[in-house]
Amino acid sequence: MVYYETVLPVRYYECDPMGIVHHSNYIRFFECARSAMMEAYGYSVQACADDKLVFPIVSVQLRYHRSLRMGDTARVTAAIRKMPLAKLEVEQQVFNQDGVLCCEGSVVLGFMDADTGRVLRCPEKFAAMLAAHLSDKNET
Amino acid sequence: MVYYETVLPVRYYECDPMGIVHHSNYIRFFECARSAMMEAYGYSVQACADDKLVFPIVSVQLRYHRSLRMGDTARVTAAIRKMPLAKLEVEQQVFNQDGVLCCEGSVVLGFMDADTGRVLRCPEKFAAMLAAHLSDKNET
Amino acid sequence: MVYYETVLPVRYYECDPMGIVHHSNYIRFFECARSAMMEAYGYSVQACADDKLVFPIVSVQLRYHRSLRMGDTARVTAAIRKMPLAKLEVEQQVFNQDGVLCCEGSVVLGFMDADTGRVLRCPEKFAAMLAAHLSDKNET
Amino acid sequence: MVYYETVLPVRYYECDPMGIVHHSNYIRFFECARSAMMEAYGYSVQACADDKLVFPIVSVQLRYHRSLRMGDTARVTAAIRKMPLAKLEVEQQVFNQDGVLCCEGSVVLGFMDADTGRVLRCPEKFAAMLAAHLSDKNET
Repeated sequence: MVYYETVLPVRYYECDPMGIVHHSNYIRFFECARSAMMEAYGYSVQACADDKLVFPIVSVQLRYHRSLRMGDTARVTAAIRKMPLAKLEVEQQVFNQDGVLCCEGSVVLGFMDADTGRVLRCPEKFAAMLAAHLSDKNET
Repeated sequence: MVYYETVLPVRYYECDPMGIVHHSNYIRFFECARSAMMEAYGYSVQACADDKLVFPIVSVQLRYHRSLRMGDTARVTAAIRKMPLAKLEVEQQVFNQDGVLCCEGSVVLGFMDADTGRVLRCPEKFAAMLAAHLSDKNET
Repeated sequence: MVYYETVLPVRYYECDPMGIVHHSNYIRFFECARSAMMEAYGYSVQACADDKLVFPIVSVQLRYHRSLRMGDTARVTAAIRKMPLAKLEVEQQVFNQDGVLCCEGSVVLGFMDADTGRVLRCPEKFAAMLAAHLSDKNET
Repeated sequence: MVYYETVLPVRYYECDPMGIVHHSNYIRFFECARSAMMEAYGYSVQACADDKLVFPIVSVQLRYHRSLRMGDTARVTAAIRKMPLAKLEVEQQVFNQDGVLCCEGSVVLGFMDADTGRVLRCPEKFAAMLAAHLSDKNET
């Protein structure tokens, strides 16, 4: 598994009239964790863009379990269990500072040539980045 | 079925470096269509809040088919096929101005007392609003 | 003066834990009114981008007078009093559905070549669009 | 002066079709720095809300000097030079990771009773928090 997690304190503007993080923001937290993983593992979103590689979103699933609110700190995880061919599936979770699971889901992304818009198979450089960061974390 | 649709021109700030509407915004478009439906059908989000009724999000699914970009106008639909008991499921679609399906998904919401945080069964007033707006549209 | 106004119902996700539209969103409402003006007056943001013309923001001022909340509808105005040379100044106001001024401000934009990043003087095509839509509205 | 700074990596969804952080987000970065300051100095936004103290925004000014883009990290500062009476003025700056000033501005906030909506003078507890964190940093 390729695994990463990052910490995001809740921002005031992310909270809605119920006083909780608006449900649309978890999809953004998911993206932040993926971006942080790519940066940490040596092939950042910006570096990909420089290589004309972008990641169209195919689908997202979210299940909400517990609210986050101002003062909370989200710990957001990204886990990749299968080396991608044409599609990359990322399992994602958001925990609060007490380790309670607040939201979980999965995101499926494609690979696309930024100039031509053509769908690509997973580029070797991206696959190599993943392969270099396989870990046993959370493996069952 | 209870059905509604609303039109949302793409806003510049909703678009990302790929020049397309960022995928997180479709979950917000979905919400806009639900809010517009409730307003149009006589029991607005604000009226619900005044009645201490809020709608915690249980889950969201999104599948992305085509991009929207600046200059496009989204037509966003909300369809409820089953009268809710404890949960309300809304099927949602986003089309562009040419009628092309750009994104579709479903949102499951609960009913909650805004003061106590207690989960509720679908309140009668909400059920009555839905019942008063059953239509045959898109029925198969 | 070149003048335009557009109507934007408040969206739930735009509201914060105080139950009011978060102050950051007014700067987005301002932009929506400018975009709608350009679309209506025949030289849309997208058409400008196709012509490699983009509008870097130089400065923004906002003064907040009254809150907007869920259920309210914003009427957002854009007024240009001076034909631009290197800079375009737009005066902007946000009213609620009762005509109460909620927020006002001004936005100064530049003109830039999207490919080279070079600062431009106001392009003739943009100036012509403005000149074709001079009105007496609100002139004192 | 009361001074604080915090670091915010640029998020992909914050960037617009020009590939740069959308200008509306700086007003959110400003808020993040103020929130982080209050948290660090012992009277967080949430603790204020628990005390029924909220901060209506009176005005915001922003001047944009340089763009931030994906891969950049914003360093956002908040500086209070005068102990507030009825209004709190915060000077704010955003630098990139190379120390280049990207955006600067000021935010004026009021004090309000969250329950009654009444405008307050600066509460003693808030003033005490500021007084306990006076520094010489950047004083001229």
